Amino acid sequence: MPHDPPRRDRLRTPALVLDLDALERNIATMVATAKAAGVALRPHAKSHKCPEIARRLAASGALGPACATIGEAEAMAAAGLGGILITSPMATDDMLARVRRLLLRGADLLLVADHAGNVDALDALAAAAGRRLSIIVELDVGVGRTGCIEIADAVALARHIAGHKPLRFAGIQGYYGNLQQVMPFDERQQRAAAQIERIRALVAALTAERLKPEIITGSGTGTHWIDAQSHLFTELQPGSFLFLDSCYQPIPLSPAGNPFTPALFVAAGVVTANHPTKVIVNAGWKAFATDSGKPVPLRGAPAGATYRYMGDEHGAVEFESGPAPALGAVIELLTSHCDPTVNLHARYQVVRGEAVVDEWPIAARGY
Amino acid sequence: MPHDPPRRDRLRTPALVLDLDALERNIATMVATAKAAGVALRPHAKSHKCPEIARRLAASGALGPACATIGEAEAMAAAGLGGILITSPMATDDMLARVRRLLLRGADLLLVADHAGNVDALDALAAAAGRRLSIIVELDVGVGRTGCIEIADAVALARHIAGHKPLRFAGIQGYYGNLQQVMPFDERQQRAAAQIERIRALVAALTAERLKPEIITGSGTGTHWIDAQSHLFTELQPGSFLFLDSCYQPIPLSPAGNPFTPALFVAAGVVTANHPTKVIVNAGWKAFATDSGKPVPLRGAPAGATYRYMGDEHGAVEFESGPAPALGAVIELLTSHCDPTVNLHARYQVVRGEAVVDEWPIAARGY
Repeated sequence: MPHDPPRRDRLRTPALVLDLDALERNIATMVATAKAAGVALRPHAKSHKCPEIARRLAASGALGPACATIGEAEAMAAAGLGGILITSPMATDDMLARVRRLLLRGADLLLVADHAGNVDALDALAAAAGRRLSIIVELDVGVGRTGCIEIADAVALARHIAGHKPLRFAGIQGYYGNLQQVMPFDERQQRAAAQIERIRALVAALTAERLKPEIITGSGTGTHWIDAQSHLFTELQPGSFLFLDSCYQPIPLSPAGNPFTPALFVAAGVVTANHPTKVIVNAGWKAFATDSGKPVPLRGAPAGATYRYMGDEHGAVEFESGPAPALGAVIELLTSHCDPTVNLHARYQVVRGEAVVDEWPIAARGY
Repeated sequence: MPHDPPRRDRLRTPALVLDLDALERNIATMVATAKAAGVALRPHAKSHKCPEIARRLAASGALGPACATIGEAEAMAAAGLGGILITSPMATDDMLARVRRLLLRGADLLLVADHAGNVDALDALAAAAGRRLSIIVELDVGVGRTGCIEIADAVALARHIAGHKPLRFAGIQGYYGNLQQVMPFDERQQRAAAQIERIRALVAALTAERLKPEIITGSGTGTHWIDAQSHLFTELQPGSFLFLDSCYQPIPLSPAGNPFTPALFVAAGVVTANHPTKVIVNAGWKAFATDSGKPVPLRGAPAGATYRYMGDEHGAVEFESGPAPALGAVIELLTSHCDPTVNLHARYQVVRGEAVVDEWPIAARGY
């Protein structure tokens, strides 16, 4: 189907709209923060799932993309990106077979492990692929998800890796995803500091065993400033700063506030205009992630309008006073949780001001 | 990427698993209920978004697919399906242009309208396409979403349609989506009965104006039995009965209970097995719809295990006693809300017992 809408207010709906000016500002701001603190960036591709954005980040000096899934890593490698860190363990037979294929194709990969059985499987595939494989040991820093639970477990796993010829112990990962949106800022900082101390203890224990980690990776948009100031991490993995969704928008990300600008919106069309104080738009549970909060109507909506989910394909934009949007009009809404919202769409409609200037495929959508 | 996993317990994860035996039983049960009541079926494709399933329904006697979006209608028409009813107003310029293209290609389409301005636009495009277009007037039956609000509005709109030569007034639609999961059954039945009386009043008012509706369409899985027994509707639009998600599973759908069987699961792989009473799987907010309830771990999980969301790509399968699933094992979970969960995946892995027997693209995924 041909699809070249030239104007932002006439987009095919629902559409995922990316404001390029805001994106470029957000990247420049994050790059400046990292540079000032002397820490590298490996921004997380689970947020954007888009090789074009990963390329722009690499051109701004990023080490490469962090990826949550093997599918994201495949999409990034296929687009010619290097420095790919898969931040979650590759543990099923299918994942391991796909890692092997990536290695055979020469992909520049870093993997994470949290279990000796997993390390043994990676050892076998590295040997079979005839490539040395760099492995990062993950420490669970209070999330209760992936990672070694105790510092001693992480040290033992690093030792286990170092004992396998085809493998190289490359460093450690600790990501406190549960702290990213803790309010107020002081509490976030204190709780992150406690985990930073645990990671320092792991570094000390490894160093005592002549396994000093070269890479110390982790962090996210919510703690990126805190983690940069810790001078512990060698690299940071933020992703949401690119878009600044409605979850992150009210959150101070440094003592000076929030330096990022909303860049990601969903454009929806008015399909019913029979009510005095609301219109019905064609964007519902299938156009927005519903796990955290609600989208916020902005462009094309009366000031102060709010959004209410009304099923799979519909929502209500409600307002106290008009003028009401017309039947067929396009309204843009700030997304609630950016990562799973991006995952619902096939492409970004890239805009500057009123113009649609490009269309970027979300190549790693889904898995 | 080649992708031919022969066995259900070795699927690439996350995968959307469709149990073909259960699907066939669910279709046969719904067909028998409709036949016994003398009502036709136009099952809703917004649930399955898959031409192969629409074809099987048509082969079982369905009139054609109901579609929520123009994208679904395009996918169904491209697959050669007729009897397509788009159940939501086509009101933006883009939607209207795409309807016109479908008409020019000879698609067998029925459209819904709730506004005179929308009817005028449809009139213009039908004239331009040189095709007569059948329009169904929607009445809002208590949802507050799409549809004419008052019976008099719906009658006026039917008259408006009848006054346009390129258009044909084909009937009415009333869908109480808000009642589909009301418990207990008696309350659902009473509240549906009140809306059925409103639709009967609309039929009477239209008949008095010599605009007796040929088609009376609506209904869903939750009220299909009630609506079939009403002998008001000429056709029913259920969709979720195909899959029976964890929202619908506990709901009695007739006085005799729930005659459908769960058919849709997400297969997830164990990526971390470091905890005594849980494993971490690679399916989170991006693999399950999160708007209603949680998935339920079944195959491969200890009896009584529960699921907890742990972010975009992860969840915890928690249990009191083992044996714990092994690292790399595949666990299947009953989906929570089927429609938006299907929309997250590119294809169904179709299984019979332990065998993966086919792969069906979800052609209308997204928009």
